[in-house]
Amino acid sequence: MPSEFALIARHFVRPTDHSELGIGDDAALIRARPGMELAISTDMLVSGTHFLPGTDAHLLGWKTAAVNLSDIAAMGGEPRWITLALALPEADEAWVAALADGFFECCQHFGVDWIGGDTTRGPLNLCATVFGEIPQGLAIRRSGAVAGDDLWISGTPGLAVLGLEALFGHLELAPEWQRTCLAALERPQPRIALGRALRGHAHAMLDVSDGLAGDLGHILESSGVGGTLDQAALPLAGPLAACGDAALALEKVLYGGDDYELIFAAPPAERAFLMQLAAELALPLHRIGVCETSPGLRLAMSDASLRPLRPKGFDHFA
Amino acid sequence: MPSEFALIARHFVRPTDHSELGIGDDAALIRARPGMELAISTDMLVSGTHFLPGTDAHLLGWKTAAVNLSDIAAMGGEPRWITLALALPEADEAWVAALADGFFECCQHFGVDWIGGDTTRGPLNLCATVFGEIPQGLAIRRSGAVAGDDLWISGTPGLAVLGLEALFGHLELAPEWQRTCLAALERPQPRIALGRALRGHAHAMLDVSDGLAGDLGHILESSGVGGTLDQAALPLAGPLAACGDAALALEKVLYGGDDYELIFAAPPAERAFLMQLAAELALPLHRIGVCETSPGLRLAMSDASLRPLRPKGFDHFA
Repeated sequence: MPSEFALIARHFVRPTDHSELGIGDDAALIRARPGMELAISTDMLVSGTHFLPGTDAHLLGWKTAAVNLSDIAAMGGEPRWITLALALPEADEAWVAALADGFFECCQHFGVDWIGGDTTRGPLNLCATVFGEIPQGLAIRRSGAVAGDDLWISGTPGLAVLGLEALFGHLELAPEWQRTCLAALERPQPRIALGRALRGHAHAMLDVSDGLAGDLGHILESSGVGGTLDQAALPLAGPLAACGDAALALEKVLYGGDDYELIFAAPPAERAFLMQLAAELALPLHRIGVCETSPGLRLAMSDASLRPLRPKGFDHFA
Repeated sequence: MPSEFALIARHFVRPTDHSELGIGDDAALIRARPGMELAISTDMLVSGTHFLPGTDAHLLGWKTAAVNLSDIAAMGGEPRWITLALALPEADEAWVAALADGFFECCQHFGVDWIGGDTTRGPLNLCATVFGEIPQGLAIRRSGAVAGDDLWISGTPGLAVLGLEALFGHLELAPEWQRTCLAALERPQPRIALGRALRGHAHAMLDVSDGLAGDLGHILESSGVGGTLDQAALPLAGPLAACGDAALALEKVLYGGDDYELIFAAPPAERAFLMQLAAELALPLHRIGVCETSPGLRLAMSDASLRPLRPKGFDHFA
């Protein structure tokens, strides 16, 4: 069985592009560029909680990197460096190699240096910490939304959770949507170009990891405002086509989670810029509601009635 | 049962002293001081592998921070920021509160801002990532030792593993040493002041987490040199007094691990400086051997014979 040091040497030590020192010493060494501050985020993925025990190792590696990069995107940052600590029940070298390849593929794709790690024995657990650069003072926090702002979301939330439920056998997806939903679940795309482009345009932003309503609730609460979503403006078409059930599609778009799309508040004066940006990035941006002074989150139904939305995301201890 | 968000809000959100933004958004924000580079290290502690399942939560919190800070000390850095991700089998709030208090106590003691975290459900696992500042170019790597350098170690390696074996009931310690050995195990002191003071003086350095011989082996191998340790110069008195067995004391000093002392190579011209430094820091520094061109690691016994030492540290998959 390969030793811990051999495993690290063979699979974790990858070329770095913009670091002073990568994996192999007590610590890695990096230098932020002048005028930049660092955004730092850490995420832990646990077998059985965040992914199914038999998940393909390469896809799991990709996702572990991607969900961390998404947190930097959500601040308007450019992810530049990442570390990965890993607890493994056994030293299954083929599995570790595939995981490392998937992790590295995502890092490379987004220009991120993999600079540090730790491997140890234990129940399967992956913990990545990512560092991004943002010009000083330009980070987009969750707390900056004001009444009158539009609420926007990128892409197609709801597909990932439909993919997950199909894997569990809880529902059957339309055949032509199976691949798209699984890709949303297994190979999420952090919206880094979008996040960067929103610096100076968005007032507040989060990535949707716990569900649209829940993460929007965090923005509204920390900004001291409320909001109303327009049912007719929600991107329901994809999830509806995938599952064939309008009520289920609405539920999954609002509460699904694991989407890694960006939800943000921006003033109406930014609408033209945002439509232009969506075209440039070939990424749909949906204007789904407005911020208001009245606290809480509401859904304006197509019959003009208002339905209160519980702003509740996924809670690991609920 | 408290929610994940309530747990974070109540126990993880602590005042920060030198950070732009702490816990509570997608990412924390920090700025390195001008002329500084960042040293980054991540360590994962797993129940049953790194600590006993019933370990006191406050002590575990301290140790989780301390072993990470030690990696920054070993580069000659000043630890400034840290994140903690946590998988918990259940939301036992009293346990989480004690863990967070111990972690924060260590951070505060060493001037480190606790800026980020993640809590999730899963088998108990603690993953901290620490960021330290070092003036650009002054980091002390493992690879800089040259033939002719003295080899030094701080403090009293071997006590921590004696404490662990006493906890397991594998041996009985002299009563007056029980507390010292347990403190070495449960409240390790990262040698931050020593590490910083060695900038520009030590050629190579590591912290002793996997055992003196193993970590020294890493220095020698990556520096392309060998070394001989002098048995008579090893700090054996403490471990010997604690366990009453000379052969066992030698074994534990060389191979014990979990010590978090600093082992370093420095040219003979630094001897006077180092003796002065030891006095200033009230921390013993032991000159235990020399670097040589001949590869490998040897122990010069008191009868002048040479014994080859396997430079083998702890391997989680061995």
